[in-house]
Amino acid sequence: MREQSTAFQDCYPDDYAHCYGCGHLNEQGLRIKSYWDGEESICQYDPPKKYTGGFPDYLYGGLIASLIDCHSAATASAARCRAAGIDLEAQALPRHVTAALKIDYLKPTPVETVTLKSRVLEITGKKVVVETTLSAGGMVRAKGEAVMVLIERNG
Amino acid sequence: MREQSTAFQDCYPDDYAHCYGCGHLNEQGLRIKSYWDGEESICQYDPPKKYTGGFPDYLYGGLIASLIDCHSAATASAARCRAAGIDLEAQALPRHVTAALKIDYLKPTPVETVTLKSRVLEITGKKVVVETTLSAGGMVRAKGEAVMVLIERNG
Repeated sequence: MREQSTAFQDCYPDDYAHCYGCGHLNEQGLRIKSYWDGEESICQYDPPKKYTGGFPDYLYGGLIASLIDCHSAATASAARCRAAGIDLEAQALPRHVTAALKIDYLKPTPVETVTLKSRVLEITGKKVVVETTLSAGGMVRAKGEAVMVLIERNG
Repeated sequence: MREQSTAFQDCYPDDYAHCYGCGHLNEQGLRIKSYWDGEESICQYDPPKKYTGGFPDYLYGGLIASLIDCHSAATASAARCRAAGIDLEAQALPRHVTAALKIDYLKPTPVETVTLKSRVLEITGKKVVVETTLSAGGMVRAKGEAVMVLIERNG
């Protein structure tokens, strides 16, 4: 069940909305959308057929890493707001960049709608650690752990 | 100095050449090319402008992960051939899939030509561990470690 209608990524300020994976201003990008679902965040994505791995019936591992990265970054920002009691839509989302990303590819992933679910393991100072599963056909296909770092940038 | 003119990826069999990152049969993909350069493997890639991160002057982290993943997979295959004394162009390259991928993002990467250099840390049975740096403007921007696993597939 989704708790709000505005995606995390739509709350990024415009100067941070150019990401190929999740920026609403990148017209050629993936434009993934993430939401709260209780304590977890969720993102569903239906990949274009061009994103195949070596075999044409498997999803590209680089896309799996990209989806986990972008969903984790948005989750980190939303979690920082939630921890501070700030409404997501009340102000621009704080910005995080990826310091480290670890993906375990557990099973081949078909080229069909995938579901990402993340939970926050830790928020400490500028750091947020996010754990993610990527599922398709009701099975977890990959797991990720991302270390996200809050950034300030003017201009 | 490149030791041969045929890229690793051009030695993949056709049924494994559909990868968005490196498949020569994926017409919409990145089609990266990797070569030996002494004990290291090297790949240079000039990213299209659409692959921006959150800020339009930085390269997309998901693309960085994708490049490291594909270059590592091809390096694993080429290294297995080299270890067995098999000429790269003499037969189809053995195929590896990614079991685990770890990326450390050290500095922002500009949207310009990047150079990936990899070396093999370990070849044990079906497993190959590959360590990679990604540089731009003469500085290392990201480091990766990939665990690649040899696969057999018929049909």
